[in-house]
Amino acid sequence: MRDLLPLEKAQREAVLSKIRSVYISRGFQEIETPALEDIEKLTSGQGGDNEKLVFQVMKRGEDLDKAKQENLPLSDLGLRFDLTVPLTRYFASNHSKLPRVLKAIQIGPVWRAERPQKGRYRQFLQCDIDILGEASELAEAELLSASLAALDQIGIKNATIRVNDRRFLKRELNKLGIDAQDKALIAIDKLDKIGIDGVTKEVTESYSEETARKVAAWLESAGAEIPEELSWMHELPEANRLRFDPTLVRGMGYYTGAIFEIEHPDSDSSIGGGGRYDSMVGKWSGTDTPAVGISLGIERILELMRDDYSDQKALVLLVDGKVSAAMAEQQKLIAQGWHVRIDIAAKNQKAQLEELKQQGFTHFVQLGEGGLSQIRNLD
Amino acid sequence: MRDLLPLEKAQREAVLSKIRSVYISRGFQEIETPALEDIEKLTSGQGGDNEKLVFQVMKRGEDLDKAKQENLPLSDLGLRFDLTVPLTRYFASNHSKLPRVLKAIQIGPVWRAERPQKGRYRQFLQCDIDILGEASELAEAELLSASLAALDQIGIKNATIRVNDRRFLKRELNKLGIDAQDKALIAIDKLDKIGIDGVTKEVTESYSEETARKVAAWLESAGAEIPEELSWMHELPEANRLRFDPTLVRGMGYYTGAIFEIEHPDSDSSIGGGGRYDSMVGKWSGTDTPAVGISLGIERILELMRDDYSDQKALVLLVDGKVSAAMAEQQKLIAQGWHVRIDIAAKNQKAQLEELKQQGFTHFVQLGEGGLSQIRNLD
Repeated sequence: MRDLLPLEKAQREAVLSKIRSVYISRGFQEIETPALEDIEKLTSGQGGDNEKLVFQVMKRGEDLDKAKQENLPLSDLGLRFDLTVPLTRYFASNHSKLPRVLKAIQIGPVWRAERPQKGRYRQFLQCDIDILGEASELAEAELLSASLAALDQIGIKNATIRVNDRRFLKRELNKLGIDAQDKALIAIDKLDKIGIDGVTKEVTESYSEETARKVAAWLESAGAEIPEELSWMHELPEANRLRFDPTLVRGMGYYTGAIFEIEHPDSDSSIGGGGRYDSMVGKWSGTDTPAVGISLGIERILELMRDDYSDQKALVLLVDGKVSAAMAEQQKLIAQGWHVRIDIAAKNQKAQLEELKQQGFTHFVQLGEGGLSQIRNLD
Repeated sequence: MRDLLPLEKAQREAVLSKIRSVYISRGFQEIETPALEDIEKLTSGQGGDNEKLVFQVMKRGEDLDKAKQENLPLSDLGLRFDLTVPLTRYFASNHSKLPRVLKAIQIGPVWRAERPQKGRYRQFLQCDIDILGEASELAEAELLSASLAALDQIGIKNATIRVNDRRFLKRELNKLGIDAQDKALIAIDKLDKIGIDGVTKEVTESYSEETARKVAAWLESAGAEIPEELSWMHELPEANRLRFDPTLVRGMGYYTGAIFEIEHPDSDSSIGGGGRYDSMVGKWSGTDTPAVGISLGIERILELMRDDYSDQKALVLLVDGKVSAAMAEQQKLIAQGWHVRIDIAAKNQKAQLEELKQQGFTHFVQLGEGGLSQIRNLD
């Protein structure tokens, strides 16, 4: 977890504001769920390994006393580890007040109790769009197109998306004679990291040498012919930025159809991803609802665009401390379009202005006996 | 805690965006602190009664096992209950990377483990501005002026601010012979609710009948003459919207100077408040830093402006489900400035459009065999 300094926060808000605008221009609507969810919902098997990373909130008052005495669970609430589990709970809870097809934007923090390490935060921002209630592949098409447009809008121009489909993967593994597929998928998911030899080793351990040989042969030959389920890829205006990858798996167990991973040449790891998860809403409501989503990895994206933010209207107004004159001049300058920070002139004015320049202020003006000086650049 | 539906969230974001813009136009800079703070910091006596309402997060893994075995505290982190305690911790932690005078905007959720009741949420938004490092009354003036400007900007035009000063209160109580003042202040703070008789009763119980008589006499006679500490009130452009109230106390123990409470004729309770708290940063850093802040009660403010939000560019594009045609038409309409939601035309189109109208969409257009229909109002 970390504090955001003023310039970091300004850059972040500028980026999010642009992404939000792109999504709104495509008819998505922002929603919000609470940070805390019932601990049972967060640990019901929907969140994969993330469920082990939930920050658990202790019961309070009498409930806590009772839990201690009777050896019951001490926690009733937890901090959300993603925005997908809460979204499906939200859709189930608020069904009657929502459109039948919900096109949702969610921008908010999530928490994971990871061991502190470089580049991993225990609180970080997620930025998701999801379409719930739409079974058509139009939903997939909209999400991919909107994500690429959002990235373009913030200046991340060369992003591409790898696409696969869990139904295709399932069919292929069936052809290889693998019916219990979970462990095979987990092994194939690591292909980028451990190579074909590593996958072969894992599959041998979980299944057999013969199966492993078949999987290796499949991995080497799996071609670029797009399966029927993904024929919509051709139809996107951005089709040239999509690539079918028959070996893409993605970790989460809840995917039921198309899966995506967003890549950028300047980033080692993916900068976003998602997929279709048609069975998750049904876990809460009893009625399955088609659902597909994609998430931008905001923290990684911000790293790709370091130091790109500047407010060219940020003006320092140096005053002598008299309230009414300072406030009146500030009003006039704001009316001219400036963002006006009032500062009482320090003895060492040069150091004072240098410090404010470091903080992102670009101009200054001084209010003296004879009125306002000329506005000057801070450089 | 509650879910925000699309229109509620849109209204909220529109309001916050306007408030943020006003504060930025006055040279404030947004910052962010994590939701979780060390439990010791949240329960160190700075937060008054709110400290009892902290949601405590359980230790994890070996730390939790050890805590259980050795009967140590089970919690190491807590969810913040306000933005002031974290701000002063932030200023102390990041001192070297911040300007000597920090003018901070903070907009974010806080959590309090209150018993569920109408109109009280366990997660709610706070929207604060604070000036740290500035002892001059210019800081107070800026905060009050900026708050009124922000409220004006969102259409809350008739807000006024009651102002008092803890130094004045202290002097007055000293004159009445009250040296241990905490309980007297707590009693006077309830004047609005329990009246002079109620205050008299409480003061009698904590002090004496004689003291209570003196306090009652003071409350009845405490005039409108503004004390020296608050002479800056005259100097604000908005002076006619400020009112000196010698009986204003405000609950928190940490105030050291001016205190404020924002009122609106349509609201029973205050819609914001704040004050000077010059001793709080010193609790973390060892060096006292002048500090003053004001907080807008966003949840109450939003209640004052119910149903005020509408996006007149929100267009529904009805299509037959073919991906490429739908995406191409959406692009063209976005380029014309519309926010375009694609929907596959349902059999009962009237019901479909009525539903989307309820969700805030104002226009629709249909893509058929012959191309795009005229754009029509949804009413």
